[in-house]
This record gives sequence, C-alpha cells and structure tokens, in this order.
Amino acid sequence: MNKNKFAVTPPMGWNSYDYYDTTVNEEQVRANAEYMSAHLKEYGWEYVVVDIEWYSYEAGTRRELYQYLPFGKVEIDEYSRLLPCLERFPSSAGGKGFQPLADYVHSLGLKFGIHIMRGIPRIAAHTHGKVLGTPAGADEIANPSSICWWNPDMYGVETEREGAQAYYDSLFELYAKWGVDFIKCDDICRYDMPSAKKEIEMLHLAIQKCGRPIVLSLSPGPALIDQAWYYSQYANMWRITDDFWDNWPHLVNMFERCELWQKHVSEGCYPDCDMLPLGYVGKGFGQERYTNLRKEEQVTMMTLWCLFRSPLMLGAELTKLDDWTKSLITNKKVLHLLSGSQGARQIRRTGEQAVWFSEDTQEDAFYLALFNISDESLKISVSPSEIEIMTFGDKELEELWTDDIIGGTEGPFEAEVPAHGARLYKLRNR
Amino acid sequence: MNKNKFAVTPPMGWNSYDYYDTTVNEEQVRANAEYMSAHLKEYGWEYVVVDIEWYSYEAGTRRELYQYLPFGKVEIDEYSRLLPCLERFPSSAGGKGFQPLADYVHSLGLKFGIHIMRGIPRIAAHTHGKVLGTPAGADEIANPSSICWWNPDMYGVETEREGAQAYYDSLFELYAKWGVDFIKCDDICRYDMPSAKKEIEMLHLAIQKCGRPIVLSLSPGPALIDQAWYYSQYANMWRITDDFWDNWPHLVNMFERCELWQKHVSEGCYPDCDMLPLGYVGKGFGQERYTNLRKEEQVTMMTLWCLFRSPLMLGAELTKLDDWTKSLITNKKVLHLLSGSQGARQIRRTGEQAVWFSEDTQEDAFYLALFNISDESLKISVSPSEIEIMTFGDKELEELWTDDIIGGTEGPFEAEVPAHGARLYKLRNR
Amino acid sequence: MNKNKFAVTPPMGWNSYDYYDTTVNEEQVRANAEYMSAHLKEYGWEYVVVDIEWYSYEAGTRRELYQYLPFGKVEIDEYSRLLPCLERFPSSAGGKGFQPLADYVHSLGLKFGIHIMRGIPRIAAHTHGKVLGTPAGADEIANPSSICWWNPDMYGVETEREGAQAYYDSLFELYAKWGVDFIKCDDICRYDMPSAKKEIEMLHLAIQKCGRPIVLSLSPGPALIDQAWYYSQYANMWRITDDFWDNWPHLVNMFERCELWQKHVSEGCYPDCDMLPLGYVGKGFGQERYTNLRKEEQVTMMTLWCLFRSPLMLGAELTKLDDWTKSLITNKKVLHLLSGSQGARQIRRTGEQAVWFSEDTQEDAFYLALFNISDESLKISVSPSEIEIMTFGDKELEELWTDDIIGGTEGPFEAEVPAHGARLYKLRNR
Amino acid sequence: MNKNKFAVTPPMGWNSYDYYDTTVNEEQVRANAEYMSAHLKEYGWEYVVVDIEWYSYEAGTRRELYQYLPFGKVEIDEYSRLLPCLERFPSSAGGKGFQPLADYVHSLGLKFGIHIMRGIPRIAAHTHGKVLGTPAGADEIANPSSICWWNPDMYGVETEREGAQAYYDSLFELYAKWGVDFIKCDDICRYDMPSAKKEIEMLHLAIQKCGRPIVLSLSPGPALIDQAWYYSQYANMWRITDDFWDNWPHLVNMFERCELWQKHVSEGCYPDCDMLPLGYVGKGFGQERYTNLRKEEQVTMMTLWCLFRSPLMLGAELTKLDDWTKSLITNKKVLHLLSGSQGARQIRRTGEQAVWFSEDTQEDAFYLALFNISDESLKISVSPSEIEIMTFGDKELEELWTDDIIGGTEGPFEAEVPAHGARLYKLRNR
Repeated sequence: MNKNKFAVTPPMGWNSYDYYDTTVNEEQVRANAEYMSAHLKEYGWEYVVVDIEWYSYEAGTRRELYQYLPFGKVEIDEYSRLLPCLERFPSSAGGKGFQPLADYVHSLGLKFGIHIMRGIPRIAAHTHGKVLGTPAGADEIANPSSICWWNPDMYGVETEREGAQAYYDSLFELYAKWGVDFIKCDDICRYDMPSAKKEIEMLHLAIQKCGRPIVLSLSPGPALIDQAWYYSQYANMWRITDDFWDNWPHLVNMFERCELWQKHVSEGCYPDCDMLPLGYVGKGFGQERYTNLRKEEQVTMMTLWCLFRSPLMLGAELTKLDDWTKSLITNKKVLHLLSGSQGARQIRRTGEQAVWFSEDTQEDAFYLALFNISDESLKISVSPSEIEIMTFGDKELEELWTDDIIGGTEGPFEAEVPAHGARLYKLRNR
Repeated sequence: MNKNKFAVTPPMGWNSYDYYDTTVNEEQVRANAEYMSAHLKEYGWEYVVVDIEWYSYEAGTRRELYQYLPFGKVEIDEYSRLLPCLERFPSSAGGKGFQPLADYVHSLGLKFGIHIMRGIPRIAAHTHGKVLGTPAGADEIANPSSICWWNPDMYGVETEREGAQAYYDSLFELYAKWGVDFIKCDDICRYDMPSAKKEIEMLHLAIQKCGRPIVLSLSPGPALIDQAWYYSQYANMWRITDDFWDNWPHLVNMFERCELWQKHVSEGCYPDCDMLPLGYVGKGFGQERYTNLRKEEQVTMMTLWCLFRSPLMLGAELTKLDDWTKSLITNKKVLHLLSGSQGARQIRRTGEQAVWFSEDTQEDAFYLALFNISDESLKISVSPSEIEIMTFGDKELEELWTDDIIGGTEGPFEAEVPAHGARLYKLRNR
Repeated sequence: MNKNKFAVTPPMGWNSYDYYDTTVNEEQVRANAEYMSAHLKEYGWEYVVVDIEWYSYEAGTRRELYQYLPFGKVEIDEYSRLLPCLERFPSSAGGKGFQPLADYVHSLGLKFGIHIMRGIPRIAAHTHGKVLGTPAGADEIANPSSICWWNPDMYGVETEREGAQAYYDSLFELYAKWGVDFIKCDDICRYDMPSAKKEIEMLHLAIQKCGRPIVLSLSPGPALIDQAWYYSQYANMWRITDDFWDNWPHLVNMFERCELWQKHVSEGCYPDCDMLPLGYVGKGFGQERYTNLRKEEQVTMMTLWCLFRSPLMLGAELTKLDDWTKSLITNKKVLHLLSGSQGARQIRRTGEQAVWFSEDTQEDAFYLALFNISDESLKISVSPSEIEIMTFGDKELEELWTDDIIGGTEGPFEAEVPAHGARLYKLRNR
Repeated sequence: MNKNKFAVTPPMGWNSYDYYDTTVNEEQVRANAEYMSAHLKEYGWEYVVVDIEWYSYEAGTRRELYQYLPFGKVEIDEYSRLLPCLERFPSSAGGKGFQPLADYVHSLGLKFGIHIMRGIPRIAAHTHGKVLGTPAGADEIANPSSICWWNPDMYGVETEREGAQAYYDSLFELYAKWGVDFIKCDDICRYDMPSAKKEIEMLHLAIQKCGRPIVLSLSPGPALIDQAWYYSQYANMWRITDDFWDNWPHLVNMFERCELWQKHVSEGCYPDCDMLPLGYVGKGFGQERYTNLRKEEQVTMMTLWCLFRSPLMLGAELTKLDDWTKSLITNKKVLHLLSGSQGARQIRRTGEQAVWFSEDTQEDAFYLALFNISDESLKISVSPSEIEIMTFGDKELEELWTDDIIGGTEGPFEAEVPAHGARLYKLRNR
C-alpha cells in the first residue's frame, strides 16, 4: 500500500480535544458526527476523531491538579492494549471496542479516527502484561526511561527489542478490526532521539501490515525541519507548531512556520497547522468560551490553512455552531484550494504583512493571498514580477470571501486589508 | 530583472581556489579559460571564477603562518573598492580592473566571475576612505564588530546606516562595468544574525540596480535550512556544507545534506554541494596532489551532484587534466541531468546505501541512482513501489557511466555496486 | 542538630558497588565488615555501605541486557517503603529490615550505611500504596515525569504536594530505627531542576526530624559548582565527577575537578572524588579484575584524595586484599591529612604536572604534593614564593610514602617524580 | 613579587566612568582627587582611576550613535602604545604621559589608576607600528579575529607569537614609569577562550617584570566561576556581574552572585561587585542624574559590598557629593569590615530575604547582616544554630548604621527591616 494514497488531499474533520479535553463520551461523539453528516459533509468534512485518554475512567477528575491524572484506572485487554472506557463508551462493552461507534460514524458517510500515545501502557509493564504475537511481555517491551513529559500513561517501547514491533502490529490489527480510518499518534513528533523516531517507522510498518489504509497523523509539534524527509516517508501529517490556540500571537507565528514548511506539502504528506479553535471551545479545560479569535483573524486563519493546504480539523463543538462560523467553514471556493491548488509559496513576509501565491490545478488560474499582520489597516501592494506574471492588466481578480470581482490594471495590484485580516483572490485571465 | 533567470540551469565552471588557494594570477586564469574553451565548453562548462584575495600583494607569502595574511598591502581605489593586484593581474593597470580579463574570457565564449568578501575593507575604514554616492565615509559604513573569523580583510557594513547600500551599489556598478557575470560572496552564509543576513538583501538589490544579470553565489556553508526561503529569495546558489575536499567522509556527509535540501532546488535557486576536487589540486596550499578521491568515489560525487542538480565548479587545474578526469566531466548523458531533469528525491538512506530518483523534463524517462556508501561491494535493490512505478517489466535501464542497457524484469530491480561507488540508470519504456 | 557535626572529618569506609554491582548479600557484607574491623578500623576506616538495589529479588539477573532490571520484584512494606530483599538479607525477615545487620556492624565497632534512590517506588505509585503520616497515597506523591534516566525503580516526588515530606520523614524514621549511620542518595545531584534540588532539602529535613545523625551523601556527579552553597547547606558530601573507575583518564580529570572545588572543603562539607577502585573489583559487572590502576597511579590517587580531603570509600573486596593495597590504605601519615590538615590549594596545574599545598592543623607543618600527570618521568620544581614561604633552607621534608627525609636548600625544591606518580612531603622547620 | 601583597585589603577609590563615561579630563580628575584627599582619604579611600578611552580625541562626540566612536583619532607613540589625549590631558605633553597627573595624585597622598583594553591598537596593526623590545611589528602581534564586541579600539594579541609578551611588557614598563598603581583591564574577563585567558597571564607577567606593585583589576563580568582559581592566580580583582547600575534588579541579582563567589575572597583576591553608582552619575552618558537607588537600597548595597569585602569604587562625581552620600561612604564601623573581617558567608537566601555572617579578625566579635529584598517591611529572624553560636543571650548587638545597641535574648534574634533595606549588626559578648 502506498501511504500517500490514504490521503490524496488534506484531511478535513472534527476533533474532540479543543472542546472536551480528555472527557468526551460516546453520546457527544455521535452528536458531533450527526451534525457533520447533516451540515458539513457536503463541503468535504469527513473525519470524526476521538482525542486523548478515551481509555481512562478518571480523566478530567481533579482537573485543578492534573490535565492527565496519573496512575488512574484504565480499560485494557489481556494483551496490554488500551480499550475504550466502558462508562464513557458503553457500546464498547463485550469486547467490541470502538467497532460499534466506528460503524455508526461510517453509517453517516463519515470516517472515524482515534488518538493514541506513543508506547505501551505503564500499568501493563508494571503488571507484566502479555503481548499478542510474541513471548515477550509488556515489561520487556517497555522502555522505563522513555516517557512523555506531559502525560503519564505510557512507556515508549524498546525499539531494538524482539517483540516491540509485534506490540504495534497487535494494536493496528485491533484498530483495523474496529474500522479506524485515522490515527493521531501523540508524543512522537519533534524528537531528535533515534529511538522515538524509530517508533514512527514501526507505526508505519504496522499500518502496512494491518491491511487498512489508516491515515497517520503525528503530534505534538513543532516537527523538526531537518527530519522533513523522514516524516514524509512514514506519516501523512505532522504538526509544525506546539498546540495552536485561539490567540493572535499563535496565529502570527504560524506564518513563520508555513514559510519553513512550504516546500514539503505534497500528496499524502501534510505539514499540519493544527486544529481550528473556532466557535465554542474549552469546556473540558474548565471554562467554555467562544473563540477569542476576532472575525478578521478567523478569516486569516482559514485563508492561510487552505492556501498552505494544511489538514483542517475543527475544534468547535459542532452542535453549537453559529451561522458565522458555519459560513466560514463552508466556503466552497476557499475550501477548493485544499484539493484544487498546488505550489503555495510565500512571496513576502515582514513584521507587518505576508503575501502568498499558488496555482489552481484544474484551470488556468492562480491564488493570491494578502495578509495584514499589523495592528492597523494596511494597503498591501503586489507587483506582477513578484508573482512571475507579465501584468495584472489582463486578469480578473475574485476575492473569495466576499465574491467581489475586480479587474486588474497595469502596474502593481493593491488592496486595503483590515488589521489582522486577509484577502484571498483568484486570478483568471479576462 | 528576475534573478532566477540569471541561472536557469545550475552554473558549471572552474574556480581557482582548490588548486591556487589565494595565489592565482592572470596568466593562470587565461590558461584555464583557454583549456575550458577548447575542451569543455561544448559540454556546458562556462564560468571562470577567480577566487579569494585577488586584490592582495602578499597573498600566499608566509603561508606556514597564515592562509590570509593580515594587514597586508592591497590594491584599492579612492572609493574604498578593492581592485586586482597589479602585479598579479597586469592587464588591470590604468584603472581598468578586471575588464580586460573579463573581455578575454568573454572572447572565448565563456563567462567571468570573481570572489568577494562580505563588507568593506578594514584599511578603508581605518584610513577614512570615501564611498561613491554617499557623504558617509568608510569609517561610518564599517561595523567594527562585524568581522569574519577566518579572514582579516573586511568589516561588515552597518546595515542600518545611511550609505551602506550606496557602498554595495558602487561595487556592483564597477563589476558590471568590468563585465563580471558571477559573484561568489563569502562570509555571508550560515549566519543567523540579522545584520549579516541583511547584507544578502543588499547585494541582491545592488545587482538589481547595476543592470547586469550577475549570478549571486553565497559562501561558506553550511547554509541554515530554516533560512531556505530567504536564500532563494535573494541568491542563486548557496553552500550546503563547509568546504568540501577530496576525502570520503566529506562525500558521505553530502548525502545527508542533499536529503535536507532536496526540496529547495528550482530555477535560479541552487543548494550548492561545493567545488569538485578532481585532478590536480592543492598547489597553493603548499602541496600539489592528485585528488585523493578514488575513481569510484569520483563517480559517486558526479552522480550525486548532477542528479541533485548542484552547481558544478571544477577545482582541478585544467591544463593538467588527465583523460580519466576529462571523461568524467564530459559525460553528456550524465551532465544532461543538470538541465534536463527535475524533482530529484531521496528514496532511501541507510548507513550503507542511498537511492535517489528523478524525472526527465523532456521525455518520458526517469533517473535512478544507486549509491554504495559502505566499504564492501553491495547488491542494491529497489522495488517498483518505492519509486511509484507499476513495474520494471516494461522498462529499459541504461547505465549512464557504462552505457550498458538492461531490460527490467518483474519484481525489484537489483544491481551490484562497488564499494564507495554508484550506478546511474535512465529508465525508459520499452 | 548541626549536620556538619555528623562528619567532622571526611568519612572513610567500604562500599559494595565496585565489586558487587547490584548483587551484594548479607554474608558478603558481614565478611567485609569483619575484615574492616580486624584490619582497617584502627586506621580510621569505619563505614560499611550497602549500595544500590538491596531491595531487589532479581538484581543482576539478565545482566547482559540490564544493569537495573526494570519492573522486577522488590521487597516493600505497606507504606511504600523498600525493604531488604529477604533472600539476600535473611536477617531482615519478620519486618526487622536492616536492623540486625546494622547491629552486627555496630558490634564490630563500625558504622552502617545504605544507598537509596531519590523518590518513591514506581510500583507503589501504580498500586496506590499508602504513605505513613499522610492521607496522600503513593500515586499522589509520585511525580510520573520525574524519573531517573538510568534506573527504573523510582519516581521523584511531587515536591509541592502535601504528603511528600511525610514520605521522606517515614523513610528516615525507619532508617533511624534500623540504626543507619550513612545514606548515599542517588539520582539527586547534578540537577539544575528546582524540583530535584528541592528533594535534597527534604532529605535534610527528614534527617533532622529523625533524631539520628545520619551522614548524607549525594550522587551521582558531577555536582554543579554554582550550586555549591546549596549542597553545603544540606548535605555532607557530594560527588564532583561521574562514576570514577580504574583508568588513568578518569584520574587525570580529577585534578581539574579538585581545582574547581578546592575552596568548598570544610567540616561536614566534602566534595567527593568517589570510591577507590583498588584491589579486586568488577565481579558483579560480569568480569572480576584486579584494578587497572598501576601502583604509581594508586599512589597519585591516594595522595590527591587525602590532601584534598575527599571522603574515602574502598571499592575493593576486602576479603581479597593484597599486601600492597593494604599498605596503601593504611599509611597513617598519609591518612592523617584527612583529619589533620586544612586549606588544600592547587599551586600549579599544566598538561604535565600539578602541585598542591596544605597546612597541618595540629603542628607548624605543611604538605606539598607533586604530581606527574605526563607519561614520562619528570623533575618537578617548586619555588618558595609559590607556596608563600621564605625559603626551603630551614625546612626538613619527609616524603610520606617512602619515609625519606630530605633537608631543604636555598632556592627551589625539586624532585624526580615517576610518570603518573606522586610525591607527598611534609615540611617542618628544622 | 607576591601579587597578593599589592592589595592586602579590598581597594577603595573613585572611578571616572559612572559620571563621565569616556569623556573625563585632567581638570576633572584633579578635582575629584582633591576632594578625596580632603574629605575621604582618612576613611581609606585612595585610588583615583581614569576609565576608558583617555587616549581618544573624539570620545563622546556623536554619542547618539556610538558610545565608542570607531576609527577615531587617538594619541599613540612610536611603539604602538596609547598615550593620553593631549587636549584632554595637557600635562601629558612632551611625552610625559600620565606621569604628571600621577605625581599630582600621589602628592595628595593617593594612588593613581588607569583603564586599558586588552590587546594592541587596531590602528597600529593596520599601519604596521613598531613594538619595543621585539622585531615583530604590531601587524604581527595583533590577532585580527580577536576583537571586543563593544569597543572597536583594539585587537587581542597572538598569544603564541614571538613578541606578544614584549608588547605587554612595554606597556607596563611605561605605566610603571608614569607611576601607575592600578590597572583596570577590560575585555579580558568572562571569556572561556584559551587565547583571551592567556592574556591575563601575560599581564600578570608584565607586572612582575615592571617592578612596580600594580594592582590588576579584570573586567567586564560576569567572571566564570569555573575559572576562579585562574583569576586568583593572576589578578587582584575580577568583576562578578556585568555592569552594575543604580537600579534595584541589579542589586537583587548581586545576592546570587555573592553566594556564588563567597569562598573566593582572600588577601589580594577580590571578586568585584563593581562601582557604586551613588550621588550624581550619568553626565557623560547624556543625562546627569542623582542615583536612582533609594536610601534603603544604598544601605543594602554598602552593607553587602563591605561584608562580602568587595572592592569599593565610587561612581559619584565627588565634587557634588551631598551629606547623605558622604555619611554613607564614611561610616568607619561599616568600612572596617573591608580590612577587619573575614569568612563572610551566606546563611540564607530566599526570594524575600538574605542573611549573611562573618567574623572580626581583630576581636572576638561577629557580623550579622539582615537584608530585606522583598517589597514590604519584613521581620527577619535568625536562630543561634544557624550562625553556629550557642545563644544570643550573652551577646550585645550594635547596629552599625544607626549605632543602636540591643541586648540579645534567648531564642532567635529578630529585627524589622524596611523594604529593600538592610541591618548590619556587630555581635560582641556582653
């Protein structure tokens, strides 16, 4: 199987983290999936992803002390594999795991994904759990020095040890049986250590063996640019920043990161700008809030993510989606860039503005995005030579957020862009 | 002027450094140019580049103590611009600078290049030299803290100071008048300091103003991968390693560097693997030698440089070129990759081997290179899926160094490659 | 209790690590203690220290894979406190712990010490063990991200959490009851992290509370010189290098470390040069050997350790002690420096030699040590002014290893010192 | 000569920098010296030090662009040695250098010091100046890569080159002839580079050769704690922070630095807390101001400097000294600590307070300093055991700033200390 064919365009979907933190349950997943199916599927949104600690019985309790409660009760099978918490995911009873929920999501015409942590459960190592397909026990496969700094659930595996690959194989055999379409593996990116890197290869190999085209997404970021070839060899997407949240400095920083990674976007290989903290978020973190991003900033975010061709994962609670947010994420002309453009490149970046350019893959057209990252309204100007065209004079420019159509003139093209805002133009020959 | 049009394919030429160090003179440059014109031009070789300290009267004296003698006598004009040393370049007498030599090189159908150091001569700052086009003197433009660690000739400029751009403009006005086609600017790459980076922009702007399409090459390496966009915006080529010499570890290391930079090769933008230390080199360093690279290693080097589309600059003394070396650098099928291939990408790299792949831009053909970086002869095998073809069964493979033609069969393609050696295949449909 | 009074001179003793690694048992400890009592006690040797993993049932099995077998069976009480492995220390049966062994060591006129790892057993955290004196359980006190990189037994404690101090208090209450005189706490030195540093304070406080003057020794090294005040405030000794073994480069390096720490030796505060790998060592590591240090090197080591006033801990299996080694460690004149000298300071250190000087605290006498760290025999010369005396002319110099007595003359004092060897002189007025 | 005898107690004096920056002239130096002689000498103040760029004709011009104008005119002799600027120091005419000024200072019963930069003047290297006592020229002795990052006047010397020591020897021969008593050498401390460190040794050797007991002071800081032995071997004082100015964060930071260096104060060896920015300062920097330190902060500073036994160098313009400042720097009981105490050690340091302790060398008395580094008034308490006394009950405590005398009682001693303030007690037996 060619892993690049698992995701020929950047994945689009919803992820439970931004709203639910570690606490999402089956009912909530179903409600979001239903909304997506009814209202968003037609625009390309299709993945429904259950994020971190779905195996935990106590996740979210004692939230004032811990995001990830250590040493808490987890659901686990006899082969050291974590299973959904039965209380939160009742359909998983009887050893069915996520299969019923995945089936339901599939029945809505959508795809199903889950989050996992790199490694093998610590509790399995300490209790000498068995591992399917190998005589080695969890205590032999676990590397007691390979831990995640922020989550206490797992030990990394002893990558050179007999049986370590068998463990990962057993995981994906199970996930394939469940019908999982997407794995977000955490605590595996941004490492320079050979052993942690090796686990990326092991995951890839396990997917190849399991026979199901499961998309592999790596977290957290920032991924290391000097490992770009390595990621593209084994994964489908990898985070290029640390967690992205709804504040302007995070968004400004993303321009620098996109500059860095712009050459590395290709079929099945997506540098990932992280989830979109739109609409209502934050409930599981203790304080539900409407996104702190201003409307202009949201436009900037969507423009950059789409033009750069980042995966798009909604952080919003979908059942609470307001009209504005919905309009933002269902603009077909803008979303078209994900599947119908290529070669996005930065033309300019200063402390005040950024300009990007890309080309349509289906018609003789181009995209030009003007970003105002300053705190004042700004006239942004682009000369034909900067984007390697002869003239704007024979072009028509359609602004894709407003549907305004402008005729280009000789000389530079110039537009007024509001503070923190963006303009996204499609250029066609007149 | 679009600087990418100054070098639509990777520059090919000769550079005086590997053989002459700091000591080359006019007669020697002419002799090498004549050889190139007579024997190499038809294969695409065209640049003749005079490397470091052509302005120095004492360069190479006291070589046991200094590579770059400090505080020595230099030829300099009233505007703080270095001129060729009259003793070494007699045709420059009468204020003609490099114009006569450039004219001669042009008369041979070749192009002429020179090396410069970032900044303004220290001696000009200390003697309060004038600068053309600005009332600011050299003492005001020089930044006394911005020095090169290994060469004592220059101070970097005060990039924020009025007059600094005028200084660079005045240099390129002179170089354009001389007929210079290529500038290798040293002590300017691999810096993370804003001020040194800024000087790259200033050089670019000076070239734009001078009206002559001068290719801009940046040294030394290793260039910083996170500055890739910046280099590609302002320069034509930039070194991706420190000085490359004729030893195997340097060559092995280049595979890692090419992996890192593979996405950044495009028209007018060339990550640079550095000069080719072939044939006779080292005389100016105190010990003339025939290259220490074994024949297999030379094949490996030429294969990698051509497939990666690095600029090619010969370090050999051309007048002493032997038949073997000449055959190596005049293989038209191999050299064709520089101008007629694209999208080179690493397929595999281990401690023992590397595999690269690229496509022809003019016909429906592909290139496959197998490198043995181990110390034993090795069978290297490639499966069709790795290079995203259906089968080798319908392909014909021509090895471009030996002209052997092999018919592909079902399953993987495999070849025996000698230790440190390479095989370069062109794949066509049968 | 003033902790500096717990060790008014540098502790001297034996430690099980160099010979037994993790495997020492009660019988072996007794045999070494008996030897010490019979043959070494009169020279000041008094501590008998059981080193790492005395609580483990499987320590030393699978030695080819692990020095410290992870997830193995340990002896532990209901309050999450590790106890001696019953199989290896049978006298600890019935909940008596190390008390019977400590009693026996005390009956020989000696003192008893044990090694501990910073933190609380991982297994206690995962099984939610109780902790004496606090409602918090081991799972709440353990910090799942605070681990030792080389030993898998413990988690560091949550230093800011209620109950963490209670855990350490409960340990020392037990150790005091057992009659422990010396604690070597590992995985606690050389950290710059506030939390790990805090655990040093917690140990100190627990000792103060337990009512027994237990000497506190910190490992591993190198301790951080910028934390010198902190160590001296809370501990009695701290390692100034990583593990010291029987090879010459380790010994040469110690001169640099002693230079660094020379001002920090005072009553109850001892920078620690680590154990003395003399006689037979290495059995538990898989290969018993006679020390690789040559005789001259052993003299150098003993001279430096004694003059610097490092703690002295024998690594040798005492029951196999040969006459030479015994003579080395029972030279009363040399050992006298530990308790009867002060103010040791480096006079000179080059790549070839080192000179140190100190003063006797009981008589009007001085010590001068000449070290030859080159590979050739060397004449080493010291002028009176370097050691701030008027003249050698009125002095008598006794070499303390050979008992040779020399009269000083005017001018510098000079002696021939063999390669890797040392001369240690006591200077008295004639 | 034993360099430790050049400064048996910490030097006390005045330095031109804090008030004049680079601009001080002879008249101003004389005026300050006269004030010192008349009003401060009796309290121990004796050094008059001319700080940076006394050789420059243009120092302080273009102050908005440069603190240190590059490439400006300097006074220099035929042997590449900088001389006082004749315009600013007219008595130096006729080749007399600083001798007349030194003579005058000496005539007032004071000592004379000057600032120098490490190395040899750049202009001398570029003009191939001669060097006394060696055939090597300044161009051969100067190391063109060894520069100061903030001052453009000098090149460091080629420490391994014949003639480099001769240059430093020639400097100190001149300074000895002038009658210089104190050299503050700048750009020489805080380096980890072997070559810059070597220049410290070279200065020391030059002083030994010159025959005059010139105190050697090293700048800038922070000195490196792991080079402590090295500094103490060759210099008399060395800065332990970067430039200290009149603001509270700088003063708070000094407590950490004094903790670090407390063991390294001894006769002739003084870690240096830097100049005292008291009274009027800043004129040469463009804005004369009365010190920004509040009175309580000034007391804190003086208490710490005196107890730690730092050198004391006044930054104030002495001719403008007010009564408060004068009283602060002429408290004999406090200043007595410089010469009559020893063994200062930190007892405690938290984010809110610090406690220090030392002993008198002449009587059976001790010093206890309580520092409040918080922003609120604070009761600070010290138990007898912390300072290793039996009880306060038999002690009398005299506060040395207020002359208040308190009888100690059983239990801890406690005092209210104002925010940012200090209390300094002398403890005697009743």
